[in-house]
Amino acid sequence: SLVHDDIEDGDTVRRGRPTVWALWGIPQALNAGDALYAIAHLALLRLAERNLPPRTVIAALDLFDRTCLRLTEGQYLDIRFEAEENVTIESYLKMVEGKTAALLAAACELGALVADATPAQREHLHQFGRHLGLGFQIQDDILGIWGDPQVTGKPASSDILQHKKTLPILHGLRQSEPLHHLLAQPDLTPDDAARAAAMLEASGSRDWTADKAREQIEAALEALDQADVRGPAADGLRELAQGLSGRNR
Amino acid sequence: SLVHDDIEDGDTVRRGRPTVWALWGIPQALNAGDALYAIAHLALLRLAERNLPPRTVIAALDLFDRTCLRLTEGQYLDIRFEAEENVTIESYLKMVEGKTAALLAAACELGALVADATPAQREHLHQFGRHLGLGFQIQDDILGIWGDPQVTGKPASSDILQHKKTLPILHGLRQSEPLHHLLAQPDLTPDDAARAAAMLEASGSRDWTADKAREQIEAALEALDQADVRGPAADGLRELAQGLSGRNR
Repeated sequence: SLVHDDIEDGDTVRRGRPTVWALWGIPQALNAGDALYAIAHLALLRLAERNLPPRTVIAALDLFDRTCLRLTEGQYLDIRFEAEENVTIESYLKMVEGKTAALLAAACELGALVADATPAQREHLHQFGRHLGLGFQIQDDILGIWGDPQVTGKPASSDILQHKKTLPILHGLRQSEPLHHLLAQPDLTPDDAARAAAMLEASGSRDWTADKAREQIEAALEALDQADVRGPAADGLRELAQGLSGRNR
Repeated sequence: SLVHDDIEDGDTVRRGRPTVWALWGIPQALNAGDALYAIAHLALLRLAERNLPPRTVIAALDLFDRTCLRLTEGQYLDIRFEAEENVTIESYLKMVEGKTAALLAAACELGALVADATPAQREHLHQFGRHLGLGFQIQDDILGIWGDPQVTGKPASSDILQHKKTLPILHGLRQSEPLHHLLAQPDLTPDDAARAAAMLEASGSRDWTADKAREQIEAALEALDQADVRGPAADGLRELAQGLSGRNR
């Protein structure tokens, strides 16, 4: 999904390294992503060789493919929003539910499914992953404006430069008419982006967004408590969620 | 696979209608192809609701995904060949095995698998689809040069214009030095393409390729006989293979 995502977004760099399409061209990168998608299914099918009941393997694949479909729904909205004037915070959150939260929710639920957890545990772990995904994406929106270019590997305020409609920007547009005018320009300079970032900070959009991220991480930790799982793996999940608050890349 | 194929080949028209990426742009078309790929898996998973043993559903998915992986291998070679000077007939056939034959072989084998056919029938139906796919692709190569633009919906000699290394062209390059010189030009006019097509006809490459297609269709019909299947569906498969000889689109 990341190989295809980089093509869709036109990103030439990911984590400081050139993306597949930047190196090999769109046709080969698109095809390589398709190959990885097939391999992902074959990896899941290998569950059948692990003494897992065939019905569980089928349930895992069903969950996986329903999630992949949700991902494409989120991705569809994400691509469409870049050209759209009026994106609401509600439709933005719907997009993130599909694009990021559904993936992490399914990843956590798959573990529960394969481990033969109770239906309630499956649901709580699903919610853990979902809130973690929402929190992660909202954090990512903060980093897309205020992240350190040295750490993120992206230019400063890159989401502003790319006209993305992320959560702090959607919040800021509702607060500040001058910001609206500034971002309406078709071409933005790094100076414009720096000014926009300062306006977002002044309008309280950064703090508001950070609160939203924290709320999601709190909800994730609560779901994890309700799942009532113990041991080093459960500790790992808890640390992962807690560590997200201090995330800087 | 066709939605992605059109992006990879840069084709703006398929069967006389604009392709998805030509209408909606590469990002949305790429994503729509991913969505269809997920939906294809969900369709196969619905076999589980049809009183089919779960192990058969898993075997069907395994066959499907191994085939998708083979498809990407063939596609990789196909994209690479366009930029390559020396493509051999052997490597060309390996590409077609992956790109087209594996898909039709799997389609036929899937039917046998789901119908609980014997292993021998599965193998014969696999071979039927494989030879049918090879015959189809070789016919397609003939149409890519000598097909009627009114029927194919593509420009005359479109494969020559696009510098494709198809079977008649690979054969012709081995026979004719002047053809080699002509096709080595980076930009080909419709006039150049018409001259190249005439040279291929004169060098016997069209007849040689038509023979190859016929051989594959004969082999397909022989495999179908060996599969020993009867009834209207078997008749339909036979007619499909026989009809391919007179294919003009």
